Formats: sequence, C-alpha cells, structure tokens
Amino acid sequence: MLQKTALFDSLQGKLTGDHVSRSRRSLGDLSNVFLNEEERLRMNPDQHVYEVEMHDSCGEVEGGLFFGVSHVHPGKVGDEYFMTKGHFHQKRNRAEYYWGISGEGLLLLMDEARVCRVEKVFPGSLHFIAGHIAHRLVNTGSSSLVVGACWPSDAGHDYESIQKDGFSIRVMEKNGEPVFVKQ
Amino acid sequence: MLQKTALFDSLQGKLTGDHVSRSRRSLGDLSNVFLNEEERLRMNPDQHVYEVEMHDSCGEVEGGLFFGVSHVHPGKVGDEYFMTKGHFHQKRNRAEYYWGISGEGLLLLMDEARVCRVEKVFPGSLHFIAGHIAHRLVNTGSSSLVVGACWPSDAGHDYESIQKDGFSIRVMEKNGEPVFVKQ
Repeated sequence: MLQKTALFDSLQGKLTGDHVSRSRRSLGDLSNVFLNEEERLRMNPDQHVYEVEMHDSCGEVEGGLFFGVSHVHPGKVGDEYFMTKGHFHQKRNRAEYYWGISGEGLLLLMDEARVCRVEKVFPGSLHFIAGHIAHRLVNTGSSSLVVGACWPSDAGHDYESIQKDGFSIRVMEKNGEPVFVKQ
Repeated sequence: MLQKTALFDSLQGKLTGDHVSRSRRSLGDLSNVFLNEEERLRMNPDQHVYEVEMHDSCGEVEGGLFFGVSHVHPGKVGDEYFMTKGHFHQKRNRAEYYWGISGEGLLLLMDEARVCRVEKVFPGSLHFIAGHIAHRLVNTGSSSLVVGACWPSDAGHDYESIQKDGFSIRVMEKNGEPVFVKQ
C-alpha cells in the first residue's frame, strides 16, 4: 500500500525522483540581462549562472501547485552579481513562496509601477511574493544561493516585461559590498 | 531598503515573525476521530495531539498561498497512532505540498470514492496532494512528526466530510509495527 514519493533534501536543496525536471541558464542564455553586456560577451557563454529543479505532478491546472529549488551560482558580470532573469507571473494575481536554504543573497521584488523593495535571503528566511510582483534572486555571497519555492501551477511566467524594461534597481558590488543602483 | 522577513527554520520546522499564527488540537478537541472513543475520554483532554504554525500574508484570495508547519506529537489512543483530523479542501480542486522535516509517519490520501493510498513521511520526503484528495498525517514514530506545507490560500478546509465518515483505513500499532485496518 505504501507509495514512493519524490525526495526534497532541505539541507542541500536537492530534488530527486519521479516528476522532477531540471533547467539551466548559462551566460550565453542571458543577453541584455546584465548592465555590462560587452563584459558578458567576453565571458565564457557556457558558464552556468543558475539552475532550477522542479517537481511537476499535475501540469498547468487551476488549483495545482509546483515545487522547486533554484540554485544561483556565485559570480559577477563586471560589478553586477549573478542573478536570475526574474519574471512576473503570466496570471498576474498568482503568488509564490520562496525560502532560503543555503548561501546568501537578495530577493528583488518590483510592482507594476516599477517600485522595488528588497528582502535578504539566507538559510531560514521565508518570503511571500504576492501576486502582481516581479521577483528576481541575486547571489551576493561566495557560495551557491539555494532557495526553495512553491507556486500555483497555472501561474505561468512573463519574462518579456523584464527582458524589455529590466528591474528598476540593480545590485552591484562596490568595495566588496552590495549596493543598489537605480536604473 | 532591506525589509524584514518571517523565518522558517527548516531543520526544526519552526515559523516565527510577522503574520505567523499557531493553533493546537488536544485530545479534548478530537471527539469521534479515533476508533476507541471510550479510551480517548479516559485520557487527559489537555494532552496535545498536534499543532499547526501558519504564515498568512494575503488572506483567502484567489491566487494567494499559505505556508505552514504541522507538528504531530507521538502517542496513541488505544492502539491507534496520534494523527490529524484530516480534511478535503473546500474548493475541491486545490492542491497542497507537504514535505517531511523530522520524525516519521504516514500520509493518508483518500479520494472522493474513499479509495486510500499511503505515503511514508520522513525527513526529505516530498508529497504532492492533488485536488479532490483528503489528507491526514499519522505519527508512527517516537518523536514529533514535523511536516512543512504550502497550499492555495482560497482552498478552505472541509473537516465535516471526514468527521462524518472518517477515512476508509486506520493506522494501528500491532506488535510494535503500524498496520492498516479497513473501516
């Protein structure tokens, strides 16, 4: 009667088992994401910036959920920390939870009027991302930033709005510390 | 610019900070849940059976999410292990994720035709609970069973269906091992 489950290693942030898929973004995939595009083009396009593991048992249905883990690697393009592309949800009112598993970084949250706020991400931090809020993870540390996530399976991703206009702030390293630079 | 977040201790399974509430079920709250009702009435009604911590930043809105941690204490009523009341979601198509944090137990999953299946819960187990599926946690171990959860904030709880008919199987201890008993 006992049924097999997927596995979520909440210390390492690793998903394994049935219904788990992985995707990866390398520098070559991230055109016009970082401020210094010339520097990105000089870097190795195969360098991994982040990976997402995702557990999908139901597909994109109303009332369904997905569960995932994001791993943002340490690194910079010029003075700008490695980060995710960031997105709004296609269905704008869909929320999401993030929680910090390992590493340290920042969660950029931007509303549709382009007003940004920032939450610190660290092992044990919990982040509610309301609907209508774009979200991006930035790794400001020296090890991978690993973050758990759960979101409605019918949320969808709108990367285009961010690809076009970006976030209204960027996170750059200055004298070894993260600073916020307005766009 | 940095904003305070709630905290989720994913080792201890403890939620703290703003928007976190706690609820508790003691033996006195759990009439007609266990098979041996006479034995339950002989026991201390103030004995805690389980607690739920919950992070609610958005209320019951479409597209919203709640995040929680359940702690089911070790114990038995007669030969039946301590467990949660169990519920369907009021909005039947709403799913939920559970993941094992500490302790060991079982997740009972029952569809609307009263067909049950069981998943083992342990640190690192991940459980997708589809819509239309009632769910109940059973602690078969000697320490607290601690389980993380994320679910749509408009799901609601239907405890009444379970209160009326129960689950179609019970988990009893026999010779120190859990066995399934059909109702």
